Amino acid sequence: MITLHDFYRSSASFRVRIALNLKGLAYQSMVRDLDTGAQSSPGYRSINPQGLLPALEIDGHVLTQSAAILEFLDAKFPEPPLLPKTELERARVRALFQFVVSDTHPITTMRVGRYLKQSLDCEDAAIARWKQHWITECLSVLETALASDRATGRFSHGNQVSLADVALVPQVVSARGLGLSIERFPTVSRIYEACMQVTAFENAHPDKYPTTPTLNKD
Amino acid sequence: MITLHDFYRSSASFRVRIALNLKGLAYQSMVRDLDTGAQSSPGYRSINPQGLLPALEIDGHVLTQSAAILEFLDAKFPEPPLLPKTELERARVRALFQFVVSDTHPITTMRVGRYLKQSLDCEDAAIARWKQHWITECLSVLETALASDRATGRFSHGNQVSLADVALVPQVVSARGLGLSIERFPTVSRIYEACMQVTAFENAHPDKYPTTPTLNKD
Repeated sequence: MITLHDFYRSSASFRVRIALNLKGLAYQSMVRDLDTGAQSSPGYRSINPQGLLPALEIDGHVLTQSAAILEFLDAKFPEPPLLPKTELERARVRALFQFVVSDTHPITTMRVGRYLKQSLDCEDAAIARWKQHWITECLSVLETALASDRATGRFSHGNQVSLADVALVPQVVSARGLGLSIERFPTVSRIYEACMQVTAFENAHPDKYPTTPTLNKD
Repeated sequence: MITLHDFYRSSASFRVRIALNLKGLAYQSMVRDLDTGAQSSPGYRSINPQGLLPALEIDGHVLTQSAAILEFLDAKFPEPPLLPKTELERARVRALFQFVVSDTHPITTMRVGRYLKQSLDCEDAAIARWKQHWITECLSVLETALASDRATGRFSHGNQVSLADVALVPQVVSARGLGLSIERFPTVSRIYEACMQVTAFENAHPDKYPTTPTLNKD
């Protein structure tokens, strides 16, 4: 039994949904509504002291942090692989992944938005510009990194889906949600479209999330 | 030949210095002065399009993102290991690592501070409070996660240094640099002190950095 503590708009949860789908693993979704702060409830904090999504329960163990969860899933369920074979290639894929997961997404999360609003008196428009700034920088860097490297193929690394794509797609979806045009980034845009042809990505998309999920209250 | 594009105050570079020392790998330091924006120069961007530190040049290849570099070093130079043996343990260590590397450090970097100052008119005191807020939250979560888990030993995971410690130490050094007391976090504090008994950590500390490094201008 696999349970994903999840929310449709959580980018980090989206990554894990993609990986679970790619690996063909059935899971139950436990919705933690970020809009009501459910991820900070004592009940959820007792599962994940970080108070962040996602958390994955598997065989009685709780795993946190999307990067750690994805590496675990890839090691335990190796087909299809989410990392290429050689260590140099793996380093490239992990670097593309981390540039999104570490150096972009955490700066643009709801908890950061809350601090900007509550402690720095930022208006909603300024918070939107903040997010747009960091995401635009991210997509611009990804575009350069992907377009300038022959290792890029139909997907971020060659012609097989990898962790780099698992990070790229939720980031592009967030960008679009903020009204950013991704056509300025043709390689990113092309890879995004290629991923969305893959059922595992399509089915993990927030738009596919059940419209009336059972919310977990605690 | 290994070259680390590095700066003494770069937390992410500090992580890689620790790992290189632990693995007993000799390297040359190429200083990129964050205070003058050297990491954004066209010369450095041609090496690392992300314009971030660190980058590691090894056997003619450039690796970026500390998490990707550390995984690479651990795979290529397995002794001493920076990750435990079982996948569940590895997931725990990677989660502790990522909580610092993804969900804390990127929010508190100089580039974020610059945006707060230049685009949101924040004063230096507000920027310091911002950093203190995120780092305090990080240390508080780490304290709970480490103190509540029997897997914690002399170090973050058992009695052997791991990636979790490689992330923890630079974060504690940053906290101290901001005037935060870490005594409120006794487990974090104890593990920090244990790490600093290890020569590889001690020699990677910013205080040990050459006082008159040769700056790279381009």
